[in-house]
Amino acid sequence: MTKKVIIVGGVAGGATAAGRLRRLDEKSHIIMFERGEHVSFANCGLPYYIGGAISKREKLLVQTVEAMSKKYRLDIRNLSEVVKINRDAKTVLVKNIKTGEQYEESYDDLLLSPGAKPVVPPIAGIAEAEQLFTLRNIPDTDRIKAFITEKQPKSAVVIGGGFIGVEMAENLKELGLDVTLVEMANQVLAPLDYEMAAIIRQKLSHHGIKVILEDGVQELQENGRQIILKSGGKLAADMIVLSIGVKPENKLAEDSGLTIGERGGIVVNQYLQTSDPSIYAVGDAIEVTDCVSGKPALIPLAGPANRQARIAADNISGRKKTYAGTLGTAVVKIFDYTAASTGNNEKTLRRYGMDYRTVHLHPGSHAGYYPGATPIHLKLLFTPDEGKILGAQAIGKSGVEKRIDVIATAMKGGLTVFDLTNLELSYAPPYSSAKDPVNMAGYVAANIIEDGIKTIQWHEVDEVIQSGGLMLDVREPHEQQGGMIENTRNIPLGQLRERLDELPKSEPIYIHCQVGLRGYLAVRILLDNGFDAVNVDGGWVTYSLATSAQLIK
Amino acid sequence: MTKKVIIVGGVAGGATAAGRLRRLDEKSHIIMFERGEHVSFANCGLPYYIGGAISKREKLLVQTVEAMSKKYRLDIRNLSEVVKINRDAKTVLVKNIKTGEQYEESYDDLLLSPGAKPVVPPIAGIAEAEQLFTLRNIPDTDRIKAFITEKQPKSAVVIGGGFIGVEMAENLKELGLDVTLVEMANQVLAPLDYEMAAIIRQKLSHHGIKVILEDGVQELQENGRQIILKSGGKLAADMIVLSIGVKPENKLAEDSGLTIGERGGIVVNQYLQTSDPSIYAVGDAIEVTDCVSGKPALIPLAGPANRQARIAADNISGRKKTYAGTLGTAVVKIFDYTAASTGNNEKTLRRYGMDYRTVHLHPGSHAGYYPGATPIHLKLLFTPDEGKILGAQAIGKSGVEKRIDVIATAMKGGLTVFDLTNLELSYAPPYSSAKDPVNMAGYVAANIIEDGIKTIQWHEVDEVIQSGGLMLDVREPHEQQGGMIENTRNIPLGQLRERLDELPKSEPIYIHCQVGLRGYLAVRILLDNGFDAVNVDGGWVTYSLATSAQLIK
Ligand SMILES: Cc1cc2nc3c(=O)[nH]c(=O)nc-3n(C[C@H](O)[C@H](O)[C@H](O)COP(=O)(O)OP(=O)(O)OC[C@H]3O[C@@H](n4cnc5c(N)ncnc54)[C@H](O)[C@@H]3O)c2cc1C
Ligand SMILES: Cc1cc2nc3c(=O)[nH]c(=O)nc-3n(C[C@H](O)[C@H](O)[C@H](O)COP(=O)(O)OP(=O)(O)OC[C@H]3O[C@@H](n4cnc5c(N)ncnc54)[C@H](O)[C@@H]3O)c2cc1C
Ligand SMILES: CC(C)(COP(=O)(O)OP(=O)(O)OC[C@H]1O[C@@H](n2cnc3c(N)ncnc32)[C@H](O)[C@@H]1OP(=O)(O)O)[C@@H](O)C(=O)NCCC(=O)NCCS
Ligand SMILES: CC(C)(COP(=O)(O)OP(=O)(O)OC[C@H]1O[C@@H](n2cnc3c(N)ncnc32)[C@H](O)[C@@H]1OP(=O)(O)O)[C@@H](O)C(=O)NCCC(=O)NCCS
Repeated sequence: MTKKVIIVGGVAGGATAAGRLRRLDEKSHIIMFERGEHVSFANCGLPYYIGGAISKREKLLVQTVEAMSKKYRLDIRNLSEVVKINRDAKTVLVKNIKTGEQYEESYDDLLLSPGAKPVVPPIAGIAEAEQLFTLRNIPDTDRIKAFITEKQPKSAVVIGGGFIGVEMAENLKELGLDVTLVEMANQVLAPLDYEMAAIIRQKLSHHGIKVILEDGVQELQENGRQIILKSGGKLAADMIVLSIGVKPENKLAEDSGLTIGERGGIVVNQYLQTSDPSIYAVGDAIEVTDCVSGKPALIPLAGPANRQARIAADNISGRKKTYAGTLGTAVVKIFDYTAASTGNNEKTLRRYGMDYRTVHLHPGSHAGYYPGATPIHLKLLFTPDEGKILGAQAIGKSGVEKRIDVIATAMKGGLTVFDLTNLELSYAPPYSSAKDPVNMAGYVAANIIEDGIKTIQWHEVDEVIQSGGLMLDVREPHEQQGGMIENTRNIPLGQLRERLDELPKSEPIYIHCQVGLRGYLAVRILLDNGFDAVNVDGGWVTYSLATSAQLIK
Repeated sequence: MTKKVIIVGGVAGGATAAGRLRRLDEKSHIIMFERGEHVSFANCGLPYYIGGAISKREKLLVQTVEAMSKKYRLDIRNLSEVVKINRDAKTVLVKNIKTGEQYEESYDDLLLSPGAKPVVPPIAGIAEAEQLFTLRNIPDTDRIKAFITEKQPKSAVVIGGGFIGVEMAENLKELGLDVTLVEMANQVLAPLDYEMAAIIRQKLSHHGIKVILEDGVQELQENGRQIILKSGGKLAADMIVLSIGVKPENKLAEDSGLTIGERGGIVVNQYLQTSDPSIYAVGDAIEVTDCVSGKPALIPLAGPANRQARIAADNISGRKKTYAGTLGTAVVKIFDYTAASTGNNEKTLRRYGMDYRTVHLHPGSHAGYYPGATPIHLKLLFTPDEGKILGAQAIGKSGVEKRIDVIATAMKGGLTVFDLTNLELSYAPPYSSAKDPVNMAGYVAANIIEDGIKTIQWHEVDEVIQSGGLMLDVREPHEQQGGMIENTRNIPLGQLRERLDELPKSEPIYIHCQVGLRGYLAVRILLDNGFDAVNVDGGWVTYSLATSAQLIK
């Protein structure tokens, strides 16, 4: 049977679905409506075009309307907004943006991939702020680019420290602007946990970006040239980028009575069908199932949009394909750093009351004896009993996203932390260590589960010390010059066995070293000698990264 | 119970086992015997120290005897060779290399990690060749380094094109020597298949290394300054590195009656016990089960040695841990290229008569619109029915080992090519594409299984053409200037739908493009229009890489 399929939205989800639909059926009639001028463009490249890393605008246009129509034999109608769905009649009402003219088009199956839109809160003075921008598409990009070229702004305030906010802050800084980033939460990059995000926050500061946390915009004055913060502070700015998040483009779906979820996304079943089985929906507009928590989630990322689109196209063509949910694997470049994450973070696990354990490690990106190795700050979250992997975060200069991709793959395979110890990952000195950081994370986690190795987290350290707990630093004395936890005693690991009689058996001994490894060795020695010993997970590095960020707040 | 454990071999497997044994039990008596002077050194770094990338010799010494003895409270005896095992008495006979003195030492458990030794064939004249070297340990390295410093050789012949041979060829070239690599097989790097290895062979040639394939050394003359090849050719060389492989150090085990496998490795069970349950063995000396074929295999790599060592230590300490076999994931740097592989290659699958399918892709390391993307040549092998992953190989400048690590992890998780399409891998423009190369490999493979998309491999192309088959090039005419398959017709993909009447329905139409993607799109169009169409897997790129290597042989 030759179908007539209508697609709403012509970029990541829409264009991918169109391509796959055509490949599966040469004869079906496929109409792709796109409200904007451009289809199939590289949303994710927009900040880098603004910053100049991508030098040519046409690079952003992955496909033109003409080329794509021809290649896939599609009926692409850009500057055409679908304004209404008549589900009973199986028609859509389309508005030609240029002429204002409206017309109906019938469908057998309808696919919605309308994306998301930037959140724009009702801040006083926002309507008058002429140099305030959001970034979602090519016209947004052109506006920002033109403003920078013509007005030569010297300073910018980026509101919101999510992926796009951080990317924009970096790219504007690369252009030579004075950049301030304002974020309501106590950290940037919400997918990371506080102590991990603290590394990025420091990185931004080192590159001269002023980061203001736990503060928001109260009001804009002087046509947006003056920003009044909720704290009462004031910022002057030649331009503002507002990037406090996106929300699903759900109006069309909502108006036509499709079920919308609690988080505002279109609800779909495992076949990516909406509450109307002839209407499929994919991409930023839908609610997906969070693979870890099983809860509905909004995960506005290009990979899931592309994958969902192909699955929806398969289902429309009569194949039964299911979408199993989203892990939320994500990555972002911050100057010469990379931050990546997958699965749930600790904040999410806590919010859902899930039971979990945490390890922090700082292994080298490759063998220490081969030049150029840099630390990877790695956090792994897992269940306390079976060691099921719940999530991971990593930050560093090199090899970061590789480790997250490996863990994301392990999660898809249902592997545990014990399985991580057995992964066989590529090893030669320029690439890794014989025990890859992922293997090592598995070991550290397995020791907690199998042998009950006790750890405390960085945020529990101060309380231990305040309540008079015994904190032992097993680093060499000279290492303490680089910083140390207050009120700790020092017995270097090499002397521990000879100095056991200096330690009490009546109370727990909290131990830390630089990264956690020697602390763990000390714990093993003490435990086997009848002491109660607890390691500070991630050692001084995790503690100091997290707490120095608190200090410079 | 406090045990006395003896370890034979003090490097990768031995040292790792010693550390773990100590962590698990402070009180056991652990003696580690090492024949050489050094323990716990970085075998894998040796070529890079010779080449100068690793500048300091002490970097190679991960642990000294003194430091390691202290850190792990070990009884380390270097320059001490275990020459005999008396299994009934549970003792070993030890020879002090310095004094020649021999003594017995008893054990409760014995762990063998004696490694492997370079294969040295009985070539005529080899004993007289003073400037012929093998590379396994620090003394070997010192010898080579001293020879280069003192004798200032201008030319080197590396015999054997495995990992160590290729690494040595590169490192000697970096030192400015004229390097010739001689290899008996028709390709370098045996873990790769021919057409993949061809890329590396070209790379070596581009860097000025002369590669001679399908030839071996017949005789050495003039104290090794003259090499006579089996082909009759002659090579002059100031130095020779012999690296034609390693074989298990099995003599001690064999002499003491432990079962040795068909491939010469010590046979162990899943607990890494030899045929004597008080004797464990790990590392290069043992036969492991190849995870894919289920056959015994020798896989002399550091990662497996380290992992096996920890498992054996766990078992010695009374935990029941099993070793599930080895995938053989490996990686090597070749100048600015990386080659990595996991699982079985096509040669192995063919040798074992296993049923498999192949796909070749050449996706970018990251989004094409972000600067710096380079192609990854990726090969995936899988079962024709369920899409079980059998192996993968990848070569390129960037992101290569990441994709192999992801696939190796998927294999450990028992995932299929269909699961690869659903992996959620980190995507932002500097790192990948919304459809990661691994997802893409999954798609290409899934199309073959699900939709019966037919492909032929590069080595079948010439036969198709010779037997008069119709080969259609769907690239743009100007692309043919970069090279083309002989006797093909050209209809660019964009014109295909209009020119269907030029094509016959009576015979299969073989299609190729640059990398396989447009060829696939053309196949879909033709199939849906009632033609019989077959895609050339990997397109012109795979075909030309493989065949141009044949030409320059
Ligand atoms: C600046 C920026 C950087 C990003 N970087 C990354 C990144 O690094 N990694 C990553 O994974 N993701 C990134 N993303 C997110 C990614 O681009 C989205 O997840 C993805 O594009 C979602 O696909 P979609 O099809 O749901 O929506 P879109 O790609 O946004 O497409 C939706 C289209 O539908 C059109 N539309 C909406 N309603 C209608 C209607 N009624 N009629 C007709 N047309 C309509 C819209 O005009 C829009 O063009 C980034 C996004 C932005 C904006
Ligand atoms: C130059 C080179 C480069 C390499 N590069 C890589 C790489 O990039 N990636 C990778 O994964 N692997 C690499 N390897 C392989 C890796 O080093 C080995 O797989 C690993 O070291 C094996 O560990 P093992 O404990 O079995 O043997 P070894 O580490 O070799 O240790 C065995 C030790 O046992 C001692 N011994 C033997 N018999 C006796 C005895 N009877 N009494 C006392 N002592 C004895 C030997 O002297 C030796 O020191 C490389 C090897 C070499 C030589
Ligand atoms: C450009 C765009 C239209 C491409 O969609 P697409 O046709 O699905 O994807 P590709 O061109 O990458 O091709 C993928 C297809 O080629 C096949 N393919 C890829 N390489 C192949 C090869 N070497 N041999 C054979 N087939 C191959 C794949 O199997 C897949 O086909 P399938 O889905 O039928 O299995 C769409 O992804 C798009 O608009 N992207 C830009 C917008 C966007 O994604 N933005 C967010 C990120 S910036
Ligand atoms: C150096 C050598 C002795 C180290 O052996 P090791 O003690 O097993 O390994 P490491 O020092 O890396 O430490 C690993 C241990 O620390 C733990 N650990 C690592 N990081 C940690 C952290 N941040 N917090 C807590 N524990 C940590 C691991 O869990 C593991 O302990 P476990 O096995 O009891 O679980 C041994 O690997 C060796 O000799 N290597 C050189 C030879 C070689 O491998 N050659 C081939 C490659 S070149």
